Amino acid sequence: MAIKAAIMGYGNLGRGVEKAISRAEDMELVGVFTRRDPAGVKVDSGAKAYHVDALEGMKDDIDILIICGGSATDLPEMTPKYAALFNVIDSFDTHANIPVHFANVDEAAKKAGKIGIISCGWDPGMFSLNRLYAHSVLPGGKDYTFWGKGVSQGHSDAIRRIEGVADARQYTVPVPEALDSVRRGDNPELTTRQKHTRLCYVVAKEGADKDKITEEIVNMPNYFADYDTTVNFITAEEMARDHSGLPHGGSVIYSGSTGDGTNKHVIEYSLKLDSNPEFTGSVLVAYARAAVRMNKAGDCGAKTVFDIAPAMLSPLSGEEIRAHML
Amino acid sequence: MAIKAAIMGYGNLGRGVEKAISRAEDMELVGVFTRRDPAGVKVDSGAKAYHVDALEGMKDDIDILIICGGSATDLPEMTPKYAALFNVIDSFDTHANIPVHFANVDEAAKKAGKIGIISCGWDPGMFSLNRLYAHSVLPGGKDYTFWGKGVSQGHSDAIRRIEGVADARQYTVPVPEALDSVRRGDNPELTTRQKHTRLCYVVAKEGADKDKITEEIVNMPNYFADYDTTVNFITAEEMARDHSGLPHGGSVIYSGSTGDGTNKHVIEYSLKLDSNPEFTGSVLVAYARAAVRMNKAGDCGAKTVFDIAPAMLSPLSGEEIRAHML
Repeated sequence: MAIKAAIMGYGNLGRGVEKAISRAEDMELVGVFTRRDPAGVKVDSGAKAYHVDALEGMKDDIDILIICGGSATDLPEMTPKYAALFNVIDSFDTHANIPVHFANVDEAAKKAGKIGIISCGWDPGMFSLNRLYAHSVLPGGKDYTFWGKGVSQGHSDAIRRIEGVADARQYTVPVPEALDSVRRGDNPELTTRQKHTRLCYVVAKEGADKDKITEEIVNMPNYFADYDTTVNFITAEEMARDHSGLPHGGSVIYSGSTGDGTNKHVIEYSLKLDSNPEFTGSVLVAYARAAVRMNKAGDCGAKTVFDIAPAMLSPLSGEEIRAHML
Repeated sequence: MAIKAAIMGYGNLGRGVEKAISRAEDMELVGVFTRRDPAGVKVDSGAKAYHVDALEGMKDDIDILIICGGSATDLPEMTPKYAALFNVIDSFDTHANIPVHFANVDEAAKKAGKIGIISCGWDPGMFSLNRLYAHSVLPGGKDYTFWGKGVSQGHSDAIRRIEGVADARQYTVPVPEALDSVRRGDNPELTTRQKHTRLCYVVAKEGADKDKITEEIVNMPNYFADYDTTVNFITAEEMARDHSGLPHGGSVIYSGSTGDGTNKHVIEYSLKLDSNPEFTGSVLVAYARAAVRMNKAGDCGAKTVFDIAPAMLSPLSGEEIRAHML
């Protein structure tokens, strides 16, 4: 019987999850839940849109609720709330608050006998897995994470809030020399500025002061001040033509040694993604499958990618994965 | 209390495991077990060498037996045999025989209430994990495995058996154009010859017919006939100076798509290893920890890397790994 999945929140990530469910032969989409008026929400696959208030009455119709909200305010509230009713999964990525979020979801999920997977996607998610595997296999080494080249939606939004900016896209770009040094196993100490640069494409409103916009961007604390930032002004047409996608990616590189330290080893995991939300959605769907299976096997509580055996992600049997992938 | 580990078989891999145990703060080496006369076995770390017959009397002194034997004849017999007495782990890599080996270990381990992990290392092992994660996240894509540049001990041994050969080292080398094409996401169909070349360094015995040796190498069925093979004759001094290490590595590259297929994604996991046996030994030791923990938690039977949650590999607590690696 197919796994009945539902999506809470229908933005870029919700749409990515929807596409991933359409590729999962063992899963069907029950519907999309939204805080907006569902009559105004057009679901790409034709699945039904419901108001979020309908969720409580659908306890028996949903095996897993995939929560596609923001980490700042949505997920801290939503994930524990719905873990009391459903198996749930989210992509919570505010690192400092993971312990509290984990504890809240754990309490609600255990009380309800459900599984709640948090912080799932590619970082946190697939990148985290690779940090853990590498540290476990080669203790005492050092991990480096590089992001990009890819669009940071948070940084793009920050630029859009500047006066005189009509549209903006910000790419995070790893510094090639830093990447090379880490890949060689040099184990360098790298500052923020030495690891990534920031490349911005901005459409200015008519008559806007471009120098002032540039100054505001490159000096913006937290977002840009600690980086070498390049600002390019382009037209709205160029923005639409060249920057409409949401590509991303990056690398986790781990460098460690064995024995007395003379033998060095470099482990690298890297992603090149045409669509960040579609790939993140695909990771969520694979782990949604795991959540349902683990719960059926009697497990409950909060989980992360660390707690989940890889075989749980695959629709194939143990025999099949041993035959084809071992 | 430290995990009490023992090593069965003391060749290159056994020594790699020994070094990895010395790096594991939560593990101690009980001893090395050998089919040879233990009096003639000098253990690098100073641990005791025992004859293999002593194992049966040490049921309560060993938490995990790490079996470092060959896949052809040793492991099919040893791993099920010792799974009846201990938690065990091996690096069985004869792919076609994995189902039988898994079944034999599973039966013995379940009867004894022990865990038996098979086919653990980097391929099978870490590479297998990456094939499974990628297929699960992006169903319908294609995985490619490239090995090298690295020393193949099996191929080196095959050359050494040729008349007139004093010593030999064979490197497996991925073809750069094939790697590039796969990394671009071209999804090429590649023959054996198009994926890897074979590079051989041979020390000929005095008076040996070098042309005849070269002919025998490049035409050797299974080992070389399907590859472009280069043979270089060198001196014993050059062999000792330039080819004494056992480096290896390689890449698992997966290329898949989301949605209607327009958005492509490439996932790559790669290893650059100064010492193949020391890295393999390190993987075995991390999974040895997992075997003991899973058994303590009440689990038993045959397992592969697919069945083991990543958190099981780390000596750190769940809180610690979530704080530092998620």
